[in-house]
Amino acid sequence: MSKRRTRRPLLLEAIGESGWLERLGRSLIGRARDVVVGFGDDAACVTLPPGSRGLLLVTTDLLIEGTHFTWRTATPATLGEKAVAVNVSDIAAMGGRPTAMVVGLGAPADFEVARLEVVFRAMQKACRRWGIVLVGGDTVRSERFVLAPTLLGEFDGPADRLPLRSRLKERQFLYVTGTVGDAAAGMELLLARKGATALRIAEPYRRRLIERHRRPQPRLAEGQLLAGHFDDLPMIDLSDDLRKSVGLMSQAGGVGVAVQLDRLPISTALWRFCQATGRDAVEMALCGGEDYELLFATAAELAVVRGLFRRNGIKTPVEMIGRVEGRAVRWLDKSGRAIDFRGRPFEHFSH
Amino acid sequence: MSKRRTRRPLLLEAIGESGWLERLGRSLIGRARDVVVGFGDDAACVTLPPGSRGLLLVTTDLLIEGTHFTWRTATPATLGEKAVAVNVSDIAAMGGRPTAMVVGLGAPADFEVARLEVVFRAMQKACRRWGIVLVGGDTVRSERFVLAPTLLGEFDGPADRLPLRSRLKERQFLYVTGTVGDAAAGMELLLARKGATALRIAEPYRRRLIERHRRPQPRLAEGQLLAGHFDDLPMIDLSDDLRKSVGLMSQAGGVGVAVQLDRLPISTALWRFCQATGRDAVEMALCGGEDYELLFATAAELAVVRGLFRRNGIKTPVEMIGRVEGRAVRWLDKSGRAIDFRGRPFEHFSH
Repeated sequence: MSKRRTRRPLLLEAIGESGWLERLGRSLIGRARDVVVGFGDDAACVTLPPGSRGLLLVTTDLLIEGTHFTWRTATPATLGEKAVAVNVSDIAAMGGRPTAMVVGLGAPADFEVARLEVVFRAMQKACRRWGIVLVGGDTVRSERFVLAPTLLGEFDGPADRLPLRSRLKERQFLYVTGTVGDAAAGMELLLARKGATALRIAEPYRRRLIERHRRPQPRLAEGQLLAGHFDDLPMIDLSDDLRKSVGLMSQAGGVGVAVQLDRLPISTALWRFCQATGRDAVEMALCGGEDYELLFATAAELAVVRGLFRRNGIKTPVEMIGRVEGRAVRWLDKSGRAIDFRGRPFEHFSH
Repeated sequence: MSKRRTRRPLLLEAIGESGWLERLGRSLIGRARDVVVGFGDDAACVTLPPGSRGLLLVTTDLLIEGTHFTWRTATPATLGEKAVAVNVSDIAAMGGRPTAMVVGLGAPADFEVARLEVVFRAMQKACRRWGIVLVGGDTVRSERFVLAPTLLGEFDGPADRLPLRSRLKERQFLYVTGTVGDAAAGMELLLARKGATALRIAEPYRRRLIERHRRPQPRLAEGQLLAGHFDDLPMIDLSDDLRKSVGLMSQAGGVGVAVQLDRLPISTALWRFCQATGRDAVEMALCGGEDYELLFATAAELAVVRGLFRRNGIKTPVEMIGRVEGRAVRWLDKSGRAIDFRGRPFEHFSH
């Protein structure tokens, strides 16, 4: 009789969040007539009532103490605001309009009521800002603080106008709003001990980077405008880092992308941070994550996209950072040479 | 100058979950034209699209490791099934029909992928059983396992037919489906060490009680039937214990209830458990919690309610356990004498 080898079990950290989502999409998630979009885009989309033309968007983004924040990097007020913002960002990336939110909340028994009220007031205020009604929830005991908001939204238009990632196709240009890499620098500043990194960059820049981490501004008007205007739009929000998000879009569309690294929109604040810390700004822009900007593509040229923003009173900068071409994602330096960029993606399980 | 006293901060455990929800309802939660029900019932209800007649139900019930379950009391399969069931139970208590679910999931990095797949397969299977499509979610790293499903549903009928708790009024009878107290006994059996309690009751009873804890069966058809038939129906699901739920309903309706303790539906299995352990069956029925039965009231008499169930092929037992009368909740013994019942409610923060 032969001795059987015991196989080592496959752990979540070995496949990472994206590996897990791939498994989910492949086999575990149901399809049904009324599901327009299941897993794999920023929000799910169902027709509701069933058989109707109305498109309901649903998204949920968890914020867990120790994973997404600590009380060193967040305050009750910024946490509440961010919990709403990151979910609004998902609806923005679907070109939708957020409507109602429920929130599941887990808090330690010895959590101060006044602090919890601050979390809720901040959520309430953010909801009002984005036209959302906070309608319900569940509050339970938990060792670590957990915020689990679910945001509903609507898409005004036919299903074939949803800005799905899979719409990426050749001859489109790749765009990104705002600047990237700031939020990661902000988090590093918050985590750095006093007297270290923190003091070596000017206060306004330091504050701006920290704000980008703590109080992300979802690009809601931008997302709605883009989805309403372009009929060839793949879009994704930069909750993950740019590198991973470009990869996800490329995979969904089945086409490659050539990204020009010298075109990445990097803020003055981030340049200053990198000067002070010796960090690489391009690496931070690519691998930082949590910027909550929009990444999208269209065959329209940069001047057209910028003109659209300007005509609609939107001051958010937009930059063309690459082209859809070939089969793979390539990262090009200034001279157009593909470089083997060895940054690590922001992955929830593998690190 | 006088020395100021520093006030001790108010902690969550001091006011409990219900104290917190009361604060939420009072001041922190928004009202808007399209919100039919906010916090305070089993699910929120909004008109969607805004201004339309369609009523969308939304509910979220968290399951957190260490608070709601441990891997001693749950398996990946029962956890997945229960995560769906407890949310279906909320839709049932609103007389609604569940439609789509998104799920937020937090898991430790060293969690085994195969076990996570079992959780999802069980959720998927439960969703199919209840006519729900699992449409999306978010999977993140967390020290402790967290499941945060949000379930959407529809209510077929006008808003004034929703079975809200506030509809409790004098001269109604109070009813409960199934039996109560079983789930708490099942959890105790799971937590008891081998050789102790576990072995002193016959295996079929033991198994039944454990199943009641691990695999609650939401009363969906019952809830829909009752809401469709009676136009004076307050209803609530017994996720909390009976004692607390009666109190919530009484408070919402602004009327008292007289509960006849000798009429509480107690299963043979629970009687056997109590014989073996010396526990009080009535106390367990009142203060156990997590039975996921329906508690409701109507002016219709028991024979009418039972006839309705029978005609519609529903075999679930239903019992009349009290009357709506007076201003306060009173617990009456067999001789009709009010007793001061000193059981402790199941509270998420205070214990």
